Amino acid sequence: MSASVRDLALAAHEAAPVIAALSTSAKQSALRHMADELDHQASVILAANMLDVKAARAAGRAEHLIDRLRLDATRLAAVANAVRAIADLPDPVGQVTRNETRPNGIRVARVRIPLGLIAMIYEARPNVTADAAALCFYAGNVVLLRGGSEAFNSNRAIAAALCTALRAQGLPEAAVTLIEDLRRDSVLELLQLSDLVDLAIPRGGESLIRFVTEHARVPVIKHYKGVCHLYVDASADANLALRLLIDGKTTRPSVCNALETLLVHADSAPTFLPPAIAALRERGVEVRGCERTQTLATGVVPASEDDYAEEFLDLVIAVRVVDDLDAAIAHIRRHGSDHTEVIATRDAAAAARFVAALRSAVVMVNASSRFSDGGELGLGAEIGISTTRLHAYGPMGAESLTIERYVVHGDGQVRHPASAG
Amino acid sequence: MSASVRDLALAAHEAAPVIAALSTSAKQSALRHMADELDHQASVILAANMLDVKAARAAGRAEHLIDRLRLDATRLAAVANAVRAIADLPDPVGQVTRNETRPNGIRVARVRIPLGLIAMIYEARPNVTADAAALCFYAGNVVLLRGGSEAFNSNRAIAAALCTALRAQGLPEAAVTLIEDLRRDSVLELLQLSDLVDLAIPRGGESLIRFVTEHARVPVIKHYKGVCHLYVDASADANLALRLLIDGKTTRPSVCNALETLLVHADSAPTFLPPAIAALRERGVEVRGCERTQTLATGVVPASEDDYAEEFLDLVIAVRVVDDLDAAIAHIRRHGSDHTEVIATRDAAAAARFVAALRSAVVMVNASSRFSDGGELGLGAEIGISTTRLHAYGPMGAESLTIERYVVHGDGQVRHPASAG
Repeated sequence: MSASVRDLALAAHEAAPVIAALSTSAKQSALRHMADELDHQASVILAANMLDVKAARAAGRAEHLIDRLRLDATRLAAVANAVRAIADLPDPVGQVTRNETRPNGIRVARVRIPLGLIAMIYEARPNVTADAAALCFYAGNVVLLRGGSEAFNSNRAIAAALCTALRAQGLPEAAVTLIEDLRRDSVLELLQLSDLVDLAIPRGGESLIRFVTEHARVPVIKHYKGVCHLYVDASADANLALRLLIDGKTTRPSVCNALETLLVHADSAPTFLPPAIAALRERGVEVRGCERTQTLATGVVPASEDDYAEEFLDLVIAVRVVDDLDAAIAHIRRHGSDHTEVIATRDAAAAARFVAALRSAVVMVNASSRFSDGGELGLGAEIGISTTRLHAYGPMGAESLTIERYVVHGDGQVRHPASAG
Repeated sequence: MSASVRDLALAAHEAAPVIAALSTSAKQSALRHMADELDHQASVILAANMLDVKAARAAGRAEHLIDRLRLDATRLAAVANAVRAIADLPDPVGQVTRNETRPNGIRVARVRIPLGLIAMIYEARPNVTADAAALCFYAGNVVLLRGGSEAFNSNRAIAAALCTALRAQGLPEAAVTLIEDLRRDSVLELLQLSDLVDLAIPRGGESLIRFVTEHARVPVIKHYKGVCHLYVDASADANLALRLLIDGKTTRPSVCNALETLLVHADSAPTFLPPAIAALRERGVEVRGCERTQTLATGVVPASEDDYAEEFLDLVIAVRVVDDLDAAIAHIRRHGSDHTEVIATRDAAAAARFVAALRSAVVMVNASSRFSDGGELGLGAEIGISTTRLHAYGPMGAESLTIERYVVHGDGQVRHPASAG
């Protein structure tokens, strides 16, 4: 029905130098027009979203998945405002990160430039279409968006609004291109365009991530699962730990920075676990525990080994009593997903050991896992949370969509003056 | 004959937390021992190298390839001193790159941690074995080294010396592991260890890079070819431009930051090209030129279109007369390899346009392409020059072998205080 993925990528690639060369104010103005257009086209977008929601209902999708898909006037206004907020961030392009004059007089600068062409491959939430497009654009990149079939109508309506704004600003619409071909082959084709695509960002579940890892011939930064742990140390303040537990597990269980596993030091377990498990169960959380956990509280389902590697994304938690800090660290190293880990402790040495021994993207001391988010950590906005330990690790903002390169100014310096006569 | 690649990777992976946790002084001490051991074992290493050189001679390899392979007492001493120089660099691990207190009181830091397990896949020069091992180690990583068959004996002798030093310091030898299996299948196996290898760095020619790109299931930063351009603008100082040309093309033609293509503005060509081409030919350089170049100087071979994308690595240069700056930019965008480009000009606006319009890793204004090197640009040492526009672009030093992650300290902050009660 439409152009091939390669043709779309070629058109985006051609638009790339235009977008890379835009001034900060031109980009900000375009983003504000995009946000306005999302507002103006609200009824069209919400009608399109209704089609997706109906189809999801008809297909018998789970209610929490439908909730992630669903837009309403308030949510759509928030999407538009998020685009406006991106325009208020500092422009990463052109930032000078180092500046040094070498002994021979050459002046060496490191300067941020856009990455180029980014392929965003995602599932579920339609707000990703606007968030990713706006962040990629502000960092001077062009983007190919390949959303999931379940949000097809919503994504198409949102992308159309963004492109209307680009056109109105005299900018190439190919800078934000939605791939409407929903066959998995279109993802495959995208992943093999090694001459055109500078970065692919897959954001989704296990099957998507595995498919991308197996087939990509382009650089990939994975946004994979968050099996986030809270470890309650022997010295933890029980009330503080309970607050982190309830906030981390129950306030939005469907997101990747929600807690999935609770580890409790054996000394804390007898006093901490009974009220903690009662509080979880009061809030509808299913508790799957190790044998020691089962003896300490009622209503605990036996946990299988697999439960400790599971991203439930639901009101379910795995609980294990551990002998000490080292056992907690070993558990997380073995079962974790390198996303976000939390320690509740009053012992600064224990906190330091926990931080140093784990290589997860985000490690929190006495703070909720739910702060593992670009906005909360001060990036302004995020395109997602990288679990690939390369380029960007953890929440990725606009700066993560650029790369530093070297610009050198000289006065005719050569490396071998004698030979170069 | 030896352990499988997976077994070697598993052993290295197990050593990773030990190396990641080392203090700066422990790493510096180990590096100085490695350098001393290279000195102590010089006769063994040079004898092993002699075997490789003899085999290369017997196989009829080109003299410039044999020269890249050959070690002597002076070169080996330089290899040891390069390892000592790395120990004098600032330790990137633990560096805090951002530190901010958020409105809710959480204290957000970004801190550098090691990447983990790095697989270095390279050809030719045996000094890479010591350079890569030392840089990876200093950045807190473990490394699997898969050198080329032509340097097998040299690489094995160098790696043995490094491991002797690790053992003497009570450190796991698996931190520096040479893969002695020279079948291409061992590279294939390495590239598919997505659960163990955090980064693969291929450094070599077209066939190696293509093989890695096609088969990698792990993150890759390519160190691919340098088709470096010198563009002589209409306003260039002819003497300065000639110095850059001779230094760039003739002082070490076999390296990736040597010039491969000369572009000359049509206004400069009649005065610049005749003496420039004469100077090149005096130094034994074969000149392949476009039609306009051929009319301006004698002894110019006609250039084919392929010559403009070729990394000669030899005393050969492609020359083209271009109508203006835009034509030069278009030529580089079309034929370049994103490595290093140079402009010779007295026009600041032309320089700025050249820098902004090109997205190469290193862009030089009135300075030699031969400065595109970690040492020359102030990194102290380099593991190579990345042509992948992700994570690190251009010369890669110790810092490029780490990743920033988030460490957050709080006092019990939660994201939804009302719900977390």
